[in-house]
Amino acid sequence: MLDKRATAIASPNIAFIKYWGNRDPALRLPANASLSMTLANLQTETAVQFDNLLESDQIEINGNPASVQAASRVTEHLDLIRTLSGLPSFANVCSLSNFPAGAGIASSASAFAALTAAASSAAGLDLDMKQLSILARRGSGSAARSIFGGFVQLFSGETDEDGYAEQLAPAEHWHLVDLIAVVTKEHKSTGSSAGHLLAPTSPIQAVRVQDADRRMAICKNAILQKDFQTLAQIVEQDSNLMHSVMMTSDPPLHYLEPESISIMKHVTRWREDGLAVCYTIDAGPNVHCICSFEDSHEVERQLRSIDGLLDIYRCSPGNGVALNTNN
Amino acid sequence: MLDKRATAIASPNIAFIKYWGNRDPALRLPANASLSMTLANLQTETAVQFDNLLESDQIEINGNPASVQAASRVTEHLDLIRTLSGLPSFANVCSLSNFPAGAGIASSASAFAALTAAASSAAGLDLDMKQLSILARRGSGSAARSIFGGFVQLFSGETDEDGYAEQLAPAEHWHLVDLIAVVTKEHKSTGSSAGHLLAPTSPIQAVRVQDADRRMAICKNAILQKDFQTLAQIVEQDSNLMHSVMMTSDPPLHYLEPESISIMKHVTRWREDGLAVCYTIDAGPNVHCICSFEDSHEVERQLRSIDGLLDIYRCSPGNGVALNTNN
Repeated sequence: MLDKRATAIASPNIAFIKYWGNRDPALRLPANASLSMTLANLQTETAVQFDNLLESDQIEINGNPASVQAASRVTEHLDLIRTLSGLPSFANVCSLSNFPAGAGIASSASAFAALTAAASSAAGLDLDMKQLSILARRGSGSAARSIFGGFVQLFSGETDEDGYAEQLAPAEHWHLVDLIAVVTKEHKSTGSSAGHLLAPTSPIQAVRVQDADRRMAICKNAILQKDFQTLAQIVEQDSNLMHSVMMTSDPPLHYLEPESISIMKHVTRWREDGLAVCYTIDAGPNVHCICSFEDSHEVERQLRSIDGLLDIYRCSPGNGVALNTNN
Repeated sequence: MLDKRATAIASPNIAFIKYWGNRDPALRLPANASLSMTLANLQTETAVQFDNLLESDQIEINGNPASVQAASRVTEHLDLIRTLSGLPSFANVCSLSNFPAGAGIASSASAFAALTAAASSAAGLDLDMKQLSILARRGSGSAARSIFGGFVQLFSGETDEDGYAEQLAPAEHWHLVDLIAVVTKEHKSTGSSAGHLLAPTSPIQAVRVQDADRRMAICKNAILQKDFQTLAQIVEQDSNLMHSVMMTSDPPLHYLEPESISIMKHVTRWREDGLAVCYTIDAGPNVHCICSFEDSHEVERQLRSIDGLLDIYRCSPGNGVALNTNN
């Protein structure tokens, strides 16, 4: 048998049509379908080594031992892989991201996509992309999308086997750019997993979910036809709908900071002035400014003139998970 | 016949359960019932004199000739009163408010409540409070509430005759204070009348309306029982629901400014720290901080420490419209 070790690299993604709330929290089957762009340049690299001498999983994230919460989520995911593979050993897990976690950049998406690919390979499982996507979803819903590159749709799924992502178009189909305006690098006070559980307490979540197929259809068409104006309107409406659910749940979640609102208003004005740019915001205050490659330098120049931005990340459409077993 | 002249004073109100969208735009029959507190200290004083020598209505607002839009809205309202009274004359209207218009303080509520009372009296109509409320609603939906003092509910109404307000409790029932944190005195770019027309384009307006009876019941009980914590939660949820509809309508309306979000977050924190305070925001960026009289001075002190506030108005529960025919 080969060495029970593998390394995988995965990127986060930015959802154009967002996933919020689960129809089945235990299986992380999302309440509605979603659609995202995988982000180049940002990445999580995760090494997994199963070792029958270990007495528990050893989990290091960004150079430090994982918190109890993070460690137990990783161990639960490894348990799934141990069950599937029949391998009983505990594992050493070492994960390194080149961007901040828990701030509205899908760090759990890249983390669980990389963990799924590395751990399943290290455990001797030979999974295809669809199976990897299903398994990644169990760790983090949006991780199912980060298995693939380019433009990716995640089905809501009636059962575990239906809840997978697939590529809608490859990265080279359309050179959009996500300029992520970073207004805080602090970890959000309510994580996405806890937030998903609150979604049904909002009086408008059911309608947001019912309306999702309409938004998916418009967004898919806009991407396939490279129709930026249509994309911009549906992406902003979808983002606003998710934040509407968040701020009307019980208790309410307010991920938007004053700086987020300021950037949203600037983006709207820039688009009125002719720039191909729109905003979308995940479960955190950072604002993803989606723009055409052609206009992305002007948008970046304008963003730099706004007070209070800590950083700007520039991401083109990126690749799916990459596995390296030779290390 | 008496001199065809009368003056009336009315105050704006702050809605705890908000009215957004009309079931009948021509009659301004609201899509859902609403509940408000009339605000002392802020007021509009309007003098109306019918004069058969005039060749058109002469309308002055805050010392200047009214804009074309404002003048035509006043003239339409005077036309209703001319029809009801049979008086054909044009009128001189002179209106003066002691607070800024169109910035999320219900200036049209006080303006149309005062105009309705003054003009109907000047025209010789002898209307009771319910009739005044119905007529005021035709000018501005929330004006129907400003006819009354204290805590006031406005029924949604199936027909013109059903669309009136009534007092739920008098001003002295509960000494709440509305500290209005003024972040801008500029007139909003989309007025409430235009905004109401956009409400049905939001995918969540129907649900907001369906859920309104639940919110009304909770809010009415909280007021009658002086239960601040329950009031706070339902008032904030209702405000967030309205802004959710606004920001998901087509085109979206973003009344919240960065400063609004900042104050909302402060208010939430202050309440967690034990102060009896909650926020609510109308169609404009200014934040109404509703608090107990006992905690209102500490809330005001805290508000003054926030950067970017232009002003703070302090309003106790106020009286309904007052008519003066002896001038």
